Amino acid sequence: MEINGVEIEDTFAEAFDIKVSRVLVTAATKKLAKIAATEATGYGTSVIGCSAEAGIDSYIPPGESPDGRPGYTIMICNPTKKGLDHELLERIGMGILTAPTTAVFDALEDPDEKLNVGFKLKFFGDGYEKDLEIAGRKIHSIPIMSGDFLIESDLGIKDGVAGGNFFILGDSQGSALLAAQAAVDAISAVEGVITPFPGGVVASGSKVGSNKYKFLDASTNEKMCVTLKDEVEGSQIPADVNGVYEIVIDGVDEEAVKEATRAGIEAACKVPGVKKISAGNYGGKLGAYQIKLHELF
Amino acid sequence: MEINGVEIEDTFAEAFDIKVSRVLVTAATKKLAKIAATEATGYGTSVIGCSAEAGIDSYIPPGESPDGRPGYTIMICNPTKKGLDHELLERIGMGILTAPTTAVFDALEDPDEKLNVGFKLKFFGDGYEKDLEIAGRKIHSIPIMSGDFLIESDLGIKDGVAGGNFFILGDSQGSALLAAQAAVDAISAVEGVITPFPGGVVASGSKVGSNKYKFLDASTNEKMCVTLKDEVEGSQIPADVNGVYEIVIDGVDEEAVKEATRAGIEAACKVPGVKKISAGNYGGKLGAYQIKLHELF
Amino acid sequence: MEINGVEIEDTFAEAFDIKVSRVLVTAATKKLAKIAATEATGYGTSVIGCSAEAGIDSYIPPGESPDGRPGYTIMICNPTKKGLDHELLERIGMGILTAPTTAVFDALEDPDEKLNVGFKLKFFGDGYEKDLEIAGRKIHSIPIMSGDFLIESDLGIKDGVAGGNFFILGDSQGSALLAAQAAVDAISAVEGVITPFPGGVVASGSKVGSNKYKFLDASTNEKMCVTLKDEVEGSQIPADVNGVYEIVIDGVDEEAVKEATRAGIEAACKVPGVKKISAGNYGGKLGAYQIKLHELF
Amino acid sequence: MEINGVEIEDTFAEAFDIKVSRVLVTAATKKLAKIAATEATGYGTSVIGCSAEAGIDSYIPPGESPDGRPGYTIMICNPTKKGLDHELLERIGMGILTAPTTAVFDALEDPDEKLNVGFKLKFFGDGYEKDLEIAGRKIHSIPIMSGDFLIESDLGIKDGVAGGNFFILGDSQGSALLAAQAAVDAISAVEGVITPFPGGVVASGSKVGSNKYKFLDASTNEKMCVTLKDEVEGSQIPADVNGVYEIVIDGVDEEAVKEATRAGIEAACKVPGVKKISAGNYGGKLGAYQIKLHELF
Repeated sequence: MEINGVEIEDTFAEAFDIKVSRVLVTAATKKLAKIAATEATGYGTSVIGCSAEAGIDSYIPPGESPDGRPGYTIMICNPTKKGLDHELLERIGMGILTAPTTAVFDALEDPDEKLNVGFKLKFFGDGYEKDLEIAGRKIHSIPIMSGDFLIESDLGIKDGVAGGNFFILGDSQGSALLAAQAAVDAISAVEGVITPFPGGVVASGSKVGSNKYKFLDASTNEKMCVTLKDEVEGSQIPADVNGVYEIVIDGVDEEAVKEATRAGIEAACKVPGVKKISAGNYGGKLGAYQIKLHELF
Repeated sequence: MEINGVEIEDTFAEAFDIKVSRVLVTAATKKLAKIAATEATGYGTSVIGCSAEAGIDSYIPPGESPDGRPGYTIMICNPTKKGLDHELLERIGMGILTAPTTAVFDALEDPDEKLNVGFKLKFFGDGYEKDLEIAGRKIHSIPIMSGDFLIESDLGIKDGVAGGNFFILGDSQGSALLAAQAAVDAISAVEGVITPFPGGVVASGSKVGSNKYKFLDASTNEKMCVTLKDEVEGSQIPADVNGVYEIVIDGVDEEAVKEATRAGIEAACKVPGVKKISAGNYGGKLGAYQIKLHELF
Repeated sequence: MEINGVEIEDTFAEAFDIKVSRVLVTAATKKLAKIAATEATGYGTSVIGCSAEAGIDSYIPPGESPDGRPGYTIMICNPTKKGLDHELLERIGMGILTAPTTAVFDALEDPDEKLNVGFKLKFFGDGYEKDLEIAGRKIHSIPIMSGDFLIESDLGIKDGVAGGNFFILGDSQGSALLAAQAAVDAISAVEGVITPFPGGVVASGSKVGSNKYKFLDASTNEKMCVTLKDEVEGSQIPADVNGVYEIVIDGVDEEAVKEATRAGIEAACKVPGVKKISAGNYGGKLGAYQIKLHELF
Repeated sequence: MEINGVEIEDTFAEAFDIKVSRVLVTAATKKLAKIAATEATGYGTSVIGCSAEAGIDSYIPPGESPDGRPGYTIMICNPTKKGLDHELLERIGMGILTAPTTAVFDALEDPDEKLNVGFKLKFFGDGYEKDLEIAGRKIHSIPIMSGDFLIESDLGIKDGVAGGNFFILGDSQGSALLAAQAAVDAISAVEGVITPFPGGVVASGSKVGSNKYKFLDASTNEKMCVTLKDEVEGSQIPADVNGVYEIVIDGVDEEAVKEATRAGIEAACKVPGVKKISAGNYGGKLGAYQIKLHELF
């Protein structure tokens, strides 16, 4: 299969179960909301080494938010409910409550259940906190130095999907990178998904374990490394490829991840110099989801 | 004491010992370096709830970096050496190694000792890593999908200072916020310091423990909350103050924190509507450093 | 009338006829589209001294653009058809054709007529230009160094509305500025309007002519200057107001300007410290449109 | 000659005389200064079709500016003194005076003469303007709605150099673009120069006149167009090149343009996939300056 002259490999992305939350961070201005959303979702690329996978989903204009202010939906993901509860409490408490003019609302449709993160945070008010209702939502108002921080009492979580992915193989590092950025822009228009790596792009693919160092859980995927293509037996890098980037996608459900994968691949294939699109899997043995690239189009 | 008509309270900021690192993240472009630096220092406002206090220190133009590319120095801080070692490994491994076109160099002057973070990360190369020398530094080159990630073998750490701070009291939330942003801009020109909170600004001051909820380690500092000024006995908010923001500063040493405090206060006092500058302390009982505001000028 | 406790003065904004165009600038990435859109709409605050009033209207995600790439709609406005034709040719030719990876499409609904700007620009191809059709549109493909620049042959123009406006009076410069930024964010979600001043905000209101210097066409509106409130007879600045910013709005029609005015005022009134909203007019003698603030709500 | 394996063609950039100004725009925050500087220098890529060549030179931290606030130096260039006088008046008057919290200072070293731009602008104050002295400079304070706008009375101009340039030839559009962005970042660290095109990068090179359309002053440089390399006789695009971008540099003098050219080329040659660096000239017949690439290293 080809899109715009680019080969789409007949393979699939293997994705995994993860617990997902989605909250809306509003602030006085779009810029202030972005600052808080960025802090709260930082250091959140992969649960291999981070306490969560986290990122910004969508911009929400003032007319569409419960408090009539601009905001960003963010997603925070963790393998366990207990872990996600902790991450919501700390990332909101340390990264959003501390940021100027912010408020937090639940933004997850069809949650499996709700965690009382707002209820727990309200005690920070030391007795001065108050209960409000905004747009039918139960809100806690917590006095902080610069005014009052508002947070919805319960935040929804559900079983989502992590590790959706595809690889962009380009004739140079620059073309692969430009295509990866184009893919991230396209995916950012899909609701209910994040691309948790830096700027949405993964520069370093990994394999499970290591051939040489037995103490490692993960090591470089040498068969996908462009600088090793003439050195490694079984390299999967074609001769005309000199740059590879991966896009990793977490979503509220499989449909959202599929839609993001489709949009991202289509965008990548518009950039000159992209040679091939592939995806990462473990033979289907580890993850609950198989997103077959050819079935997306 | 007054600066530009603004009262500087005769008090001091109480600051604490912390282990500090400072590394330079370079990339193909300034923007790509910023993306990696932001990811690696995210979710890093306070060790009360984050695994580190982290932030961007300074922009380093191409001509001043070891590899001739643009970059940002970032600082990562943790109370213990072991904790800092872990944070460096994970924040660099998950947030910078994974980011397009990056490299990492030690950027700490006069370190107390060095941690072999780069040496540990090189094993990710699964035997394909190589040793290089750049500008007299020992560098590991690790093949990743899109090229090679470079990192200096040893990264310096030292005893630094956390929790430098001052409060900006303004006649409105807007004037205090504008002054806080001006202060952050001024501090960003001082080398060897970070303002780890979102956008450099703290909206929520806290006190140790809680009056009402005995299970809490920290709760809102009600005497500094503008919306409680008529309600709380002993409120420290003057009648004409309606907005308060705090700036928290971590630095490589006390001199750097002092210089940053001075620069930040001078900048804040240039903004119309700022009424008073204060600082936070615990009576001098907890922290090793007392930064007296009046002695800075 | 009050909104959120803020007085809305019973007055009207006086607005004027202007010729309006609206084009979509797409590029490989959102960032590249923004760069081109910004260059093409710069130095375009007011036709008092600029060759056009120009600004960015809306972000268009890849799935909604004719070439499946991200882009921004921009609006360029000029009092005359001839003037607008010149501005389109030069601002697109110098600011967008010269920018990496861009394309230009007509984005004006219900145009009064079309100008053959793309047709004129195609001659830059010196005979190597080609005609294409994209999504039913007639497109010229012009070879440039880095690839091909695409532009739609005809670009629509229509009679629009310039000079929609309102004033935000705050208790400090900071609160008025924060409210102005909030207003601009809200207006940016309204399609078919721009706020052409720097960052969308006007710091300097003017009156027609001058009391003292007869050679001037326009001079400062001293009755709205906060630093002159105790000095100027007839000052319109209340005693508790220390900061005033104006928002100026150009739109494709009166309805769009009204909707933007309404959204902007509502957003401004959410910011603490805003005391009053007013608007600028010339007694209804100069402009074709009177946008009465009280009728918007 | 090769740099980092990239061929540097033995040719020269032909540059021209132009009148240059350099002013410092300060504001309450770095972000506000950037907004004003961007508006004032927009629509200013080339005097072929714009009223000036204009751009941002350097960021100036608070401690280094006359009023202790952050700012950006901008350069505005025009072929004639009269033209430059007009551009300074309008671009400052429409793009900076109108922007929140700004001030303007002269920032040109060794001027040939001074233009009384600030003196002319002060009349906007309609008699309420005042004279001040800041750091030994004569300043006019003009009351505007939100406070007072400050501008230095006289602004220096001098004979500078326009049209410094080099071409980056990459194996793909992406690699050439990434290298161009790297070059712009490197050049931005050189004082006294701007790269006036969008984002600093030129996507469309032109030649004087046209082969086919005699009414044109300039048309595409077909010999440098990658999509025409197999079609145009005498194409200068090597077989392995698929992307070309140009960097154009204006500077306060020839030395500054040379230093910028050197820094830009070195940065570009660090990006994988760059094949060749060239430069544009007219055989030395038109411009006063010949910047020979090989003599820079």
